[in-house]
Amino acid sequence: MHTQYPEAVESLIATFRQFPGVGRRGAERMVLALLGWEPERIDEFGRLLVALPGRIGHCPECGALAEAGRRCQICSDPSRDSGLLCVVETMAQLFAVESSGHYSGRYLVLGGRISPLEAETGDGLNLATLKARIDSGRVREVILALSSDVEGRATAVYLADLLRDSPVRVTRPALGLPAGANLSYVDAATIGAAFSGRSELD
Amino acid sequence: MHTQYPEAVESLIATFRQFPGVGRRGAERMVLALLGWEPERIDEFGRLLVALPGRIGHCPECGALAEAGRRCQICSDPSRDSGLLCVVETMAQLFAVESSGHYSGRYLVLGGRISPLEAETGDGLNLATLKARIDSGRVREVILALSSDVEGRATAVYLADLLRDSPVRVTRPALGLPAGANLSYVDAATIGAAFSGRSELD
Repeated sequence: MHTQYPEAVESLIATFRQFPGVGRRGAERMVLALLGWEPERIDEFGRLLVALPGRIGHCPECGALAEAGRRCQICSDPSRDSGLLCVVETMAQLFAVESSGHYSGRYLVLGGRISPLEAETGDGLNLATLKARIDSGRVREVILALSSDVEGRATAVYLADLLRDSPVRVTRPALGLPAGANLSYVDAATIGAAFSGRSELD
Repeated sequence: MHTQYPEAVESLIATFRQFPGVGRRGAERMVLALLGWEPERIDEFGRLLVALPGRIGHCPECGALAEAGRRCQICSDPSRDSGLLCVVETMAQLFAVESSGHYSGRYLVLGGRISPLEAETGDGLNLATLKARIDSGRVREVILALSSDVEGRATAVYLADLLRDSPVRVTRPALGLPAGANLSYVDAATIGAAFSGRSELD
């Protein structure tokens, strides 16, 4: 007979395991930690969870997460440059760009990418919103800040094609060595991109 | 202005960060994953959480987690050897011993250990249950399977002292090289223990 935790614990372990990056051991540690919490704190956690779907929606202008029925923080900010539109796949990528502190334009969150191998054709992507933004005539440059893997490149090619007839400039971030990189730990494709994009030392 | 997720998302990220081994990035990934779940699945998760404190208690015989008001799976199993009592600090250690498949006795979960540096004197430990088990007269050997760090050793010394006048044999697992170990990666204390405990090759 395989020894198990009581059923209420096993069900929660199984639920926590469904999160990305959480394995059996991690889920066990989390549920065991939970058993040390005050019941009121667990109730509060449960309430926050159950309320989540009703409180969160997508910003109608960019597709980012926002309070339900409202525009997101960035689209509501009049100081951002509406002429620059940075296209990202996910909220996590949006936050990565934001936290760099090097971008003051607006975003469009695609909500996914095109994956020919997984038959994802772009039907689920936020393309209508992208077109509406371009058609508004205020965007002068679209920065395709997509992943530099196969699906990210497929999506970039698809979008560049879609935007071909519009007057906006379509760019992508530079490929090259990451800041502080030691060449001995950098992969061949990155070194290739860094060498072909090399610039004069000034 | 620092860009943040909507408040409902930030509160949940803060909650997930309270789990051991979960940092800001991990908590973000978990909450973003949650946003992709069906509301019914999130409700079910919330229900499991809120029900947890009422459904789980401690086994009156060994202190392990059990269905509220009931004995644990191991204490209810008549095939286990009641003459052997393995003392562990936590449920996680109990499961480690169980999953080795090399032990068929019973357990006692202390629920902590003595830490002179943190002024933990053993008041919170499950010592009354341990004494009751010894006084029952059925235990012939107590195996102190505690951690081999300072607190674990302090706890072992304390318990050995407590059991000095009882007729039971008090043992601890052997110290030595872990299975499959390469000597070049083993710490000095372990090598020392393995060398002083060396045995004839047969």
